[in-house]
Amino acid sequence: MRIEVITVGNELLAGSTIDTNFVYLAQRLSAEGYSIFIHTSIPDDPIFMEQFFLEATQRSDIILTTGGLGPTIDDHTKQVVAKVFNKKFVLNKDIRNDLMQRYGPDLISLEHQATVPEGVELLKNKVGTAPGFLFQTKKNSFFVMPGVPLEMKIMFEEEVIPKIKHLLSKESKKFVRRIQLCHLSESNVDPCLREINEIYPQVEAGIYPGYGLLAVEFKIKETTEKKAQSILEGCVQKISEKFSNYIVSVDNLTLPEMVQDWMIKHEKTLILAESCTGGHLAAKLIEIPGASDYLLGSIVCYSNELKKSVLGVREETLSKYGAVSYETVYEMVQGALSLSTADYVLAVSGIAGPSGGSEEKPIGTVWCGLGVRGEKEHIGKILAKGRAKRTSVIEYTANFMLGVLWKKIAYNNVSL
Amino acid sequence: MRIEVITVGNELLAGSTIDTNFVYLAQRLSAEGYSIFIHTSIPDDPIFMEQFFLEATQRSDIILTTGGLGPTIDDHTKQVVAKVFNKKFVLNKDIRNDLMQRYGPDLISLEHQATVPEGVELLKNKVGTAPGFLFQTKKNSFFVMPGVPLEMKIMFEEEVIPKIKHLLSKESKKFVRRIQLCHLSESNVDPCLREINEIYPQVEAGIYPGYGLLAVEFKIKETTEKKAQSILEGCVQKISEKFSNYIVSVDNLTLPEMVQDWMIKHEKTLILAESCTGGHLAAKLIEIPGASDYLLGSIVCYSNELKKSVLGVREETLSKYGAVSYETVYEMVQGALSLSTADYVLAVSGIAGPSGGSEEKPIGTVWCGLGVRGEKEHIGKILAKGRAKRTSVIEYTANFMLGVLWKKIAYNNVSL
Repeated sequence: MRIEVITVGNELLAGSTIDTNFVYLAQRLSAEGYSIFIHTSIPDDPIFMEQFFLEATQRSDIILTTGGLGPTIDDHTKQVVAKVFNKKFVLNKDIRNDLMQRYGPDLISLEHQATVPEGVELLKNKVGTAPGFLFQTKKNSFFVMPGVPLEMKIMFEEEVIPKIKHLLSKESKKFVRRIQLCHLSESNVDPCLREINEIYPQVEAGIYPGYGLLAVEFKIKETTEKKAQSILEGCVQKISEKFSNYIVSVDNLTLPEMVQDWMIKHEKTLILAESCTGGHLAAKLIEIPGASDYLLGSIVCYSNELKKSVLGVREETLSKYGAVSYETVYEMVQGALSLSTADYVLAVSGIAGPSGGSEEKPIGTVWCGLGVRGEKEHIGKILAKGRAKRTSVIEYTANFMLGVLWKKIAYNNVSL
Repeated sequence: MRIEVITVGNELLAGSTIDTNFVYLAQRLSAEGYSIFIHTSIPDDPIFMEQFFLEATQRSDIILTTGGLGPTIDDHTKQVVAKVFNKKFVLNKDIRNDLMQRYGPDLISLEHQATVPEGVELLKNKVGTAPGFLFQTKKNSFFVMPGVPLEMKIMFEEEVIPKIKHLLSKESKKFVRRIQLCHLSESNVDPCLREINEIYPQVEAGIYPGYGLLAVEFKIKETTEKKAQSILEGCVQKISEKFSNYIVSVDNLTLPEMVQDWMIKHEKTLILAESCTGGHLAAKLIEIPGASDYLLGSIVCYSNELKKSVLGVREETLSKYGAVSYETVYEMVQGALSLSTADYVLAVSGIAGPSGGSEEKPIGTVWCGLGVRGEKEHIGKILAKGRAKRTSVIEYTANFMLGVLWKKIAYNNVSL
């Protein structure tokens, strides 16, 4: 069965609102083992909506829409889907009473929201005013949900996903394995995927690069879970053998999550000394709940002033070698260790651009330091990829540094 | 003319990669006054891709695709579009030479990337290996771009948008003005937009909220630019009068850009002391090139240890009032001022969740401090919106703090 998602709204097509509803639905369906066949964003234009909904009913089995369910002038979804399925409207007293109870009799949109297509299954909206609908025919299950993210999510979880699971209960599910890698690019991994493809031609492989990180995904449709998992395990094994020191996780855990789990499990702490990444490295780590259990913080010493006053980098070092140098990063590592009780330090100083580059130190030049209390520090230079853009240099550097830390703690492998 | 965007890739449909390419294209085209008619994400499935590309050529005039142009096993776009337009492949020596020069003769994908459909217009890829293509027929302009965001962006700006402007030069353009506001929500601004709608019914207004920030956009289709700009200026005036202390910019400049411009112009410097925002505030500011001219850095004192050792917050204060308190943030402000020569300080300590909340201090409770050297500090408490999600609390808080600073420097208005 094909699943199609249609998100409705001019604001999505103008790029002024990011389509978080789609991302949510995609991730949730994927986690349940289902694939979305196609996703479309269409404008609040009733004539085109009708034509497009009709096309969707011909192309897909399960259709999910979000948006256009409100009471305002640019909301058309309810009317248009009712037209496509040839349904009349009736006032639903249960919805009317429920809205009266939750919002009082003065709710302007009361009558509008309680007027629903006849003979369709209602999907409760617990936190908003617009009910959702399931138009069920022999061929299609057409789910209509509101566009307000919180309303959509609750409706999806409580009303929609159980129905989808039931509809797809006889389908062979897709089984998925995902491997996260660091310090590798697509071209490193591709030959290995081609080998795997020869051994397991029924497996669909995908590579997802992300600024110094890389995910590899294997998907397979099998009738039995056991068989599917055994084949996927074979694929994972191949990658694990080939890139043993680069594996972040053989499931969905991200690099910041893996670092955090390791640090907490081993009762270790981390401090950062960030110049060119300017807080991005810390920001990545603290997004994970529980980061305060191991991350002491970050000295974002964007100026030489803070490098000196907080980390104790010497004026002499800065003037002789510059802020982007082995010597400065060495002193940043030492400074962060003396300043705190942290077990590990990551220090970084580089040229993010667009200005500040030179022939000797082009944009993307980054000195990276890893300090481990009681061990000799590791300092090395990289040329960050994505050098044409400041944010890419920053993102690449932050991911690279986390990779350096991960390879050290997980594999005792130093890449500096 | 109808513009359609097709983003290709299983990773988009699985929700594992957010479709930033589409958002970029949508925002850029919108800023140029063009509307996207429909956006679709489709899987890396050559049979379906072919069918869908064909449908797009029948439905739309200008078609933009991203993704599926690489040399790896799951990249099919080049082959499929060539099939749709009935083109053969040839080795292009110019591309081959360019790739040789940039990547050396060992580039595995050299021959593959230099093999291109015959008789199509090539779109240069300055930062990657996959060239783009324009398939031009009487009815369609079909642009094929890579999926790596940076490669796509540079190709779009340098090769694609000039061609689109030329293709649409005879269309009546939409003129757009955008106003950036801080510390306001949709419901604050909506009544004013309704008033404006009565005065200028031909103007299309949109509100785009973003975690404590808000953009208002006015669009109008007029035959003369002069008339359009005069009407748009009227709309902007209305907003400016009503929300004078909340205006960040009456053009596309963002809050971090406005803060930076002011700081550099007035030769002032800033230091941050971040607990719950964990580097996000610094990260936002340093994304703007030139931030090093005013931002000294950030003390990301995620642990009490660093609050004490670097900022001099007293143990007594932390144990008596807790890290999330007036007293701690007061000492963070003072500590940051003594530590550095900065003229301004932003300090923040709060509960981002999902754990750590209590009845007295629920998740989203954030103490905020603004310090100005030589003036009395301003400390206040907020309850961050979007409390259901850790990242939302962080994002809202970071934007709120920048708003506090902006209102102080731009309007001498203190909101704490």
